[in-house]
Amino acid sequence: MLRYVLFVLLACTAPTVVQAQHAGIFISREDARAIKEAQGQYSLLDQAMALARKTMDVALSRPMEVPNPGEAGGYEHERHKQNYREMRFAGLLFSITGEEKYAAFVRDMLEAYAVLYPTLGPHPLAHHQKPGKIFHQTLNEEVWLVHTSIAYDCVYDWLSEEERARYEANIFRPMADWFHIRNQAEFDRIHNHGTWAVAAVGMIAYVMGDLSLVQKALHGSNLDGNGGFLRQLDLLFSPDGYYMEGPYYIRYALMPFFYFAEAIERRQPEVGIYNYRNQVLRKAYYAAVQTSFPNGVFPPINDASLTMDVGAPEVILANALTYDRYGADASLLGVAKFQGRVALNGAGLKLARDYDSHEREPDMNWPSVEFRDGHDGTSGGLGILRMGRGGDQSMLLMKYGVHGGGHGHFDKLHFIFFDQGRQVIRDYGFGRWINVEPKFGGRYLPENDSYAMQTIAHNTVVVDGMTQNLWDEDDAEEMSGQRHIFDAEDPHAMVMSARADTYYDGVGMQRTMLLLRDASLSYPVVVDLFRLTSDEAHQYDYPLHYSGQNITSNLTFETNTDLLQPLGEEYGYQHIWHTARAAADSTIRFTWLDGNRYYSIISAPWPETEVLLGRTGANDPNFNLRSGPVLVIRRQAADHLFASVIEPHGYFNEARERSEQARPSITEVRVVRHSNAASIIEVTGWQGLHWRIMISNRRIGAEESHTVTVGSQSYQWTGSHHVEFLSGAGRED
Amino acid sequence: MLRYVLFVLLACTAPTVVQAQHAGIFISREDARAIKEAQGQYSLLDQAMALARKTMDVALSRPMEVPNPGEAGGYEHERHKQNYREMRFAGLLFSITGEEKYAAFVRDMLEAYAVLYPTLGPHPLAHHQKPGKIFHQTLNEEVWLVHTSIAYDCVYDWLSEEERARYEANIFRPMADWFHIRNQAEFDRIHNHGTWAVAAVGMIAYVMGDLSLVQKALHGSNLDGNGGFLRQLDLLFSPDGYYMEGPYYIRYALMPFFYFAEAIERRQPEVGIYNYRNQVLRKAYYAAVQTSFPNGVFPPINDASLTMDVGAPEVILANALTYDRYGADASLLGVAKFQGRVALNGAGLKLARDYDSHEREPDMNWPSVEFRDGHDGTSGGLGILRMGRGGDQSMLLMKYGVHGGGHGHFDKLHFIFFDQGRQVIRDYGFGRWINVEPKFGGRYLPENDSYAMQTIAHNTVVVDGMTQNLWDEDDAEEMSGQRHIFDAEDPHAMVMSARADTYYDGVGMQRTMLLLRDASLSYPVVVDLFRLTSDEAHQYDYPLHYSGQNITSNLTFETNTDLLQPLGEEYGYQHIWHTARAAADSTIRFTWLDGNRYYSIISAPWPETEVLLGRTGANDPNFNLRSGPVLVIRRQAADHLFASVIEPHGYFNEARERSEQARPSITEVRVVRHSNAASIIEVTGWQGLHWRIMISNRRIGAEESHTVTVGSQSYQWTGSHHVEFLSGAGRED
Repeated sequence: MLRYVLFVLLACTAPTVVQAQHAGIFISREDARAIKEAQGQYSLLDQAMALARKTMDVALSRPMEVPNPGEAGGYEHERHKQNYREMRFAGLLFSITGEEKYAAFVRDMLEAYAVLYPTLGPHPLAHHQKPGKIFHQTLNEEVWLVHTSIAYDCVYDWLSEEERARYEANIFRPMADWFHIRNQAEFDRIHNHGTWAVAAVGMIAYVMGDLSLVQKALHGSNLDGNGGFLRQLDLLFSPDGYYMEGPYYIRYALMPFFYFAEAIERRQPEVGIYNYRNQVLRKAYYAAVQTSFPNGVFPPINDASLTMDVGAPEVILANALTYDRYGADASLLGVAKFQGRVALNGAGLKLARDYDSHEREPDMNWPSVEFRDGHDGTSGGLGILRMGRGGDQSMLLMKYGVHGGGHGHFDKLHFIFFDQGRQVIRDYGFGRWINVEPKFGGRYLPENDSYAMQTIAHNTVVVDGMTQNLWDEDDAEEMSGQRHIFDAEDPHAMVMSARADTYYDGVGMQRTMLLLRDASLSYPVVVDLFRLTSDEAHQYDYPLHYSGQNITSNLTFETNTDLLQPLGEEYGYQHIWHTARAAADSTIRFTWLDGNRYYSIISAPWPETEVLLGRTGANDPNFNLRSGPVLVIRRQAADHLFASVIEPHGYFNEARERSEQARPSITEVRVVRHSNAASIIEVTGWQGLHWRIMISNRRIGAEESHTVTVGSQSYQWTGSHHVEFLSGAGRED
Repeated sequence: MLRYVLFVLLACTAPTVVQAQHAGIFISREDARAIKEAQGQYSLLDQAMALARKTMDVALSRPMEVPNPGEAGGYEHERHKQNYREMRFAGLLFSITGEEKYAAFVRDMLEAYAVLYPTLGPHPLAHHQKPGKIFHQTLNEEVWLVHTSIAYDCVYDWLSEEERARYEANIFRPMADWFHIRNQAEFDRIHNHGTWAVAAVGMIAYVMGDLSLVQKALHGSNLDGNGGFLRQLDLLFSPDGYYMEGPYYIRYALMPFFYFAEAIERRQPEVGIYNYRNQVLRKAYYAAVQTSFPNGVFPPINDASLTMDVGAPEVILANALTYDRYGADASLLGVAKFQGRVALNGAGLKLARDYDSHEREPDMNWPSVEFRDGHDGTSGGLGILRMGRGGDQSMLLMKYGVHGGGHGHFDKLHFIFFDQGRQVIRDYGFGRWINVEPKFGGRYLPENDSYAMQTIAHNTVVVDGMTQNLWDEDDAEEMSGQRHIFDAEDPHAMVMSARADTYYDGVGMQRTMLLLRDASLSYPVVVDLFRLTSDEAHQYDYPLHYSGQNITSNLTFETNTDLLQPLGEEYGYQHIWHTARAAADSTIRFTWLDGNRYYSIISAPWPETEVLLGRTGANDPNFNLRSGPVLVIRRQAADHLFASVIEPHGYFNEARERSEQARPSITEVRVVRHSNAASIIEVTGWQGLHWRIMISNRRIGAEESHTVTVGSQSYQWTGSHHVEFLSGAGRED
């Protein structure tokens, strides 16, 4: 308590006020003064100030509105969200500029909430969520309090004692109680909702000077360490900082994690929050941004939007704080460039200043990287291979970690291929039109469960037409994928391999994916070896969710021209119209056009194989799904290897009426052998293209050597894998 | 002939050659010297030179290839196309720089063609086109000769007499003969293929010095004026310069029109080609670019690509020549800005110089405009209404002119609404994957006939499920739409109206479209009054081809969730999957999301109305069609008025998770009265929005006044139309 008193005496936020001052949880008096003096000097800071001022100019020009609660996504809901944004901006602008109109705005709005809030009971339209009072769910209300805490903090000293007492009695105390007493389970939950809850309560507690309440936010409502912020930092991240729900949700959770961490560091530096668990917050931030596609968009694995990117406000906040607290890193300047503005505190100022004085134009350029998953790092992981730089980087992502809670998808060994600035082999993302009120209130749609979460909605093999774990989340939470190979050292041949053995009874699954660059081809090529083993025969469906226009195939398709039916009855198949079918017992070649490039899958021949084409949208009475194509390679087998190449090729520009190389260079993929020991593949194509790919399917030492003899041909390699480019062009770039 | 001799003595192209010189058909010696001296001074000229040099650097670094002919869109086809591009660039670069490597490139390639061409017979893969020898159709070969004529012209004096004799004997003479003797009908045809033919023959004739051959190009193969360039200028354009095939094909034809015109002007200025028919070439160019959407893309009416824009090489050429020959116009500087480079001759130099010295940043900003159609201007027209400026301009286009030849669509009274930088109510464009060899050789697909040309593929009413003129092109060519109203004077209420009375036996059709700006709404709104009259009852289908995601409706749709069938059996209906149906006898409201904006149609109530939803792609065995949604309002009636409003509203940003105003402001459209004399409509919505729209359906004088009394309400107006904004906001912007 002594330290707190000292802070109250020494620190301050509002530069125009001379009385003994309150310590800031986000912006100090020195920060504020330095930002004021820096106006017009640093582009990213100026942009941030311009946005804040513009938002407030609009807000101040209109009548203030604190309406009665409304439905999710509706006008009142959006109004209350806009209110907390405006209060936060007003608080920060008051701190920085000292202009009292901003402080008065916060006061007037808090007065209105102090009248409204005591009149409210639980929101009647919570549906399956925990109700708030202003909003339909507590989650939104916790977000409201996180932002409003900063606003209140900024004007604290400017307010009269009576005003503060009124707001705390009528709003903040009862709201904090609602979160940590009435919703105790949520408060103690190891989940992003729990993070918002503890951040909201902890931050308002710091501002109100209630350190005992802060303790609950840090250590759980019972102070036993089974809940609370620190426990969340222990369990929600892997040792590599990977967040169990995936990139979209860590993006969301970055805000409470970093706002609350910054408040702790400023008000209780003795906690050492930024060093906690070997700097897990640093790792968490890097693990978030390093998953992003070359265009800055987060891969939409698990429940996730297709378009959320590193320009999001939460990432802007975390970027500045990471830069400030963990040391200058030029790649974070690249993120700042993408973001176009900085957070409005001392960290943002520092980032903006360094950005303008950086010699070269900074850019985001992330490495190929594997993140271990699970809180102890033993539950599989996420692998990302990257070739090339900038906008035309090729990126291959494979998911083999934990299920990821209620937002997890049943998609182990799923992959995404990103090329030409877009998801070429894509993840559907969530089934949700976020905040679109007429679409189920903007909430998760029934089709999120019935389609988006199901295995067939992903690019991973479906066994017997059923979803992994039979769509049982509890079952899925008890297992994880297993890492096998991750090697991105060779810029011409990057490899990752993982297993998922317990997701279907009696079926072992291993997927090995390579990104290869052959100098005779224009673009890196994906090699995909999906191996299944079982004592019994099963139906194996290998789906590829692509985009664009079907161009050609060596197969003869029977197209369903005048009658369409769903591809199945359950596990997501009921949502796919079955558009065409072909039989195949030789190499499968299928080419489509996506944007300015052609793409082909060339898949190794197996007897009695079927290729099915489909399009999403069946059993969708309210048109909640997007319409998009899918290709499924189907075979009945016990042990099986889907061995395929995905080749980007050629060029198409409709406006310029140019088309080049509409057919792939690669013509054949041949499985030489596959067993529990190894898989050996030969890939051949035009102009003598010839690759040999050898993969060890068992865990072996880097020095261990293999010899496999097939007929008169002997295959030899050392370590987990080997790729030979036998053609003339080969690896000479 | 005397004049020609003088030109040979006085004019010249290749600055390094000192002998008596050949007169240039595109670039003079003075042009070339001035361009050389201007290097590094004008951005658009530098870009043009950089492209030429880069193209030639690549070409010179690789072995020259003049392969045997191949199939349309295949490698050899593309190679021959690239060859003429390279020859033209090499010729121009030789003229400008005097570097002999460029002249040698043209010579070496002509040597190869002089060996190849005499060995060739008619191309065996012409399918339904007229065969060329190098290419599958003469059209491509004529394009080859247009470009090659310029290259040959540029190096003419540099070549030896023997070389020239060889190329003329082995290539140019027999090729010109192939075009004007063997393919005489095509040569004399009043059509863009004819234009390419006469331009190719005329241009090479100028270079070879054969003025009698030029006469055939100008006046037809029989010199009787029934064919040839001048006759084409008489008949292919309306007095306003509108081209009967539409914007996509005039874009293509701009190249032979302007290359040949420029050659005529330089070699036979006495023809006065640029003044011919009251400067029809000037009008033609402006009519082309003034149809373009705010993003520079040409509207895809008739057979047309969805993406062709004013940056196309043909438009770059015509822009410079129009600027040079018809006087400086700042809007053409705006086109040049979009194009990013200029043509490489004196006209391009002038444009580039003026662009850099222009005070303000130039932009393309076209007016609302109506073009009369038909060579004498009496065959209906094309109306374009525009509100706003720059990228967020709203544009409404209605088509009520002639059929437009073999590339015409059966789509009279069709409209396109462009908003938010995209076609919101869209035209399908052509059924063709242009130059994509595996897609039917890149040619027009069967689905172009069976779907893209049909009435139901457009946004115009289909009567009794049949295409206009029963899909008979000859029948369609005998009629046209008729202009009624075009008034874009009032920036808050623009109106166009037209009739199409003979397209269905016994059915009269009038469409009146308005673009209205009410200060209480964020965006201009479309009002659409489609009136049908008949003595007998018919089925009237009102289709809207939109894009994006269905959001909400006041109707209850029965969705076909587990079985899809086509919407019909013929006239294009067989290509539309029937996805849902609703019955309506009150106001119809239907909202969808497209990009960052919501759109709603609100349509006046009529008893026993059906609303059908569909999606293209049925009866499409080779997946040649794109998949997209359509809404059809269907009613059985004799006289009927579809009275609808299309309102853009709100905002959606998935990445920022913002959604605002997902429901329209306009709630009701009411038909007060419709008759052969007038239509009176009331539109009402939130916050007191109330409009009255009065349209005279007969041709009347501007001073004539109307009074219509309905019950106790009296409607009075003067002239063809009147719009009253009765709400508070109204027209005060």
